[in-house]
Amino acid sequence: MTLHPLLKAYMTRKSRSVNLALRRYLPKDDALIGRAMRYSMFAGGKRLRPVLVIAGAEICGGRQDRVMPAACALEYIHTYSLIHDDLPAMDNDDLRRGMPTSHKKFGVACAILAGDALLTEAFRLLALCGNSKLVAARDVVRATGILAEAAGYQGMVGGQVSDTVETGNWHQISAAAAAKRLQTIHLNKTAALIRASLLVGAVLSGADRSRAEALDAYGKNIGIAFQVADDILDVTADKMLLGKHGSDRDNDKLTYVSLYGVERSREIAARLVRDAKTHLRPFVAKGAILSLLADYIIERNY
Amino acid sequence: MTLHPLLKAYMTRKSRSVNLALRRYLPKDDALIGRAMRYSMFAGGKRLRPVLVIAGAEICGGRQDRVMPAACALEYIHTYSLIHDDLPAMDNDDLRRGMPTSHKKFGVACAILAGDALLTEAFRLLALCGNSKLVAARDVVRATGILAEAAGYQGMVGGQVSDTVETGNWHQISAAAAAKRLQTIHLNKTAALIRASLLVGAVLSGADRSRAEALDAYGKNIGIAFQVADDILDVTADKMLLGKHGSDRDNDKLTYVSLYGVERSREIAARLVRDAKTHLRPFVAKGAILSLLADYIIERNY
Repeated sequence: MTLHPLLKAYMTRKSRSVNLALRRYLPKDDALIGRAMRYSMFAGGKRLRPVLVIAGAEICGGRQDRVMPAACALEYIHTYSLIHDDLPAMDNDDLRRGMPTSHKKFGVACAILAGDALLTEAFRLLALCGNSKLVAARDVVRATGILAEAAGYQGMVGGQVSDTVETGNWHQISAAAAAKRLQTIHLNKTAALIRASLLVGAVLSGADRSRAEALDAYGKNIGIAFQVADDILDVTADKMLLGKHGSDRDNDKLTYVSLYGVERSREIAARLVRDAKTHLRPFVAKGAILSLLADYIIERNY
Repeated sequence: MTLHPLLKAYMTRKSRSVNLALRRYLPKDDALIGRAMRYSMFAGGKRLRPVLVIAGAEICGGRQDRVMPAACALEYIHTYSLIHDDLPAMDNDDLRRGMPTSHKKFGVACAILAGDALLTEAFRLLALCGNSKLVAARDVVRATGILAEAAGYQGMVGGQVSDTVETGNWHQISAAAAAKRLQTIHLNKTAALIRASLLVGAVLSGADRSRAEALDAYGKNIGIAFQVADDILDVTADKMLLGKHGSDRDNDKLTYVSLYGVERSREIAARLVRDAKTHLRPFVAKGAILSLLADYIIERNY
């Protein structure tokens, strides 16, 4: 399945704008930390989260240029999480998207600090949105709270701890308990930041509560679907295409595939995408891009 | 030299309030990440940065309760930086203040994530200040930008990279170049967060520009003095009192002591403290606590 031409055009245009903005915001000097930050930020990536920030803004009547620093902030946080996840003490990956991981290229100490720098800088970028007279300062403060909650111990970092440190042997717990555990991990590890991307875009555009809640529900569904699709790709996709060694299967990890098998996982993902789309109804025609994006989430093959 | 009784009373009262607030803000459940966060937050520490936030607020006519989440945020960032600095890939310290470091207690992966969680949560706490009707949202946004800049690649993280990763052999550069390099490292590694503490307190209290600048200049001076005093303590203090093994001297690191010797370093610190105090003049009597605190910075013996 190919990318829908409308979505493809949208993502190409938006990710190009995001890349230009990232070059503007990232450090330009030759210092080691700046080089490490730039290396990981430009080691590939579809800029999904920034595109979601922009789409979340536009669907609520906001404008791309006003939320661009926030869009970049989401990519900074996503990238920092990849750098830290790849570390020897965590997933110990040498390659990501076919390129040496940050610690392979710059050493472990520098990789840890580059991640720290990107995470910190994300909040500076978010605060930059307050420079626009067209974004209310109270909305920037709200967005800061939303992003920090989604990225921290109640969200992404919490999910990462459950997924890598507190792994345990899931074969020793009941299927129902394993299913619940899996959903919690995926909600936190992946869905939290995807939801936050949409919400931050919406909040910075002055979205009312009902629109923000609809987008949040949409984001929750595509966020989990994204992780289910990742679990499927991990066992079905060409390793060369994914550009990494090893797989979750090698670790006998708790994933949708290890718990439900590939076919049932595909059904789960499809249902999540259907559910996601129902939450776009209030936006009528403005929901078209996010509707296509929901399909893309589970149909991507890399 | 003992702590001045007035300053002692102030610090005891404020650090007690800070500790109560920290207990309120830290996760309370039994999850691993929450335990790791609490462990390092309550492994000792004088709460110097939170006290500076409060003092910075009070000297500008602000109130403790309005800046308390920000005060805690500064301690979160300080603590995350200690956790990451202690990691095997960085300073590789087993003990801090006589207790096992985070990675010794919880493992490296968990220590990295606990640091990430504290850093992220710091910005959630700062955003919480916006809940008070008496703090302007635009001041919260400004404070967020100040904190992120001070803690990130242009500040603390940048200093840490220079200090641990880009060490090089300082004997091979000129004394003038080494002195410049040392000041840059110390400005970023230590002074940036101390300055930001005072500024965040001031900004959240609606301080005008001239007061904010005076406090910033004071903070810059005591920040460097703090690091000079640290370098001196590292070679003169009882290791049991410091509660850590090894020392900068063992690594033949670039420090004030290795560059200037102990006596000259003491003179430098004393001059910095004198300079710091001159910037308190506009505050007249209200500057008393910060004046005593400047003395304390170089007279502490642990």
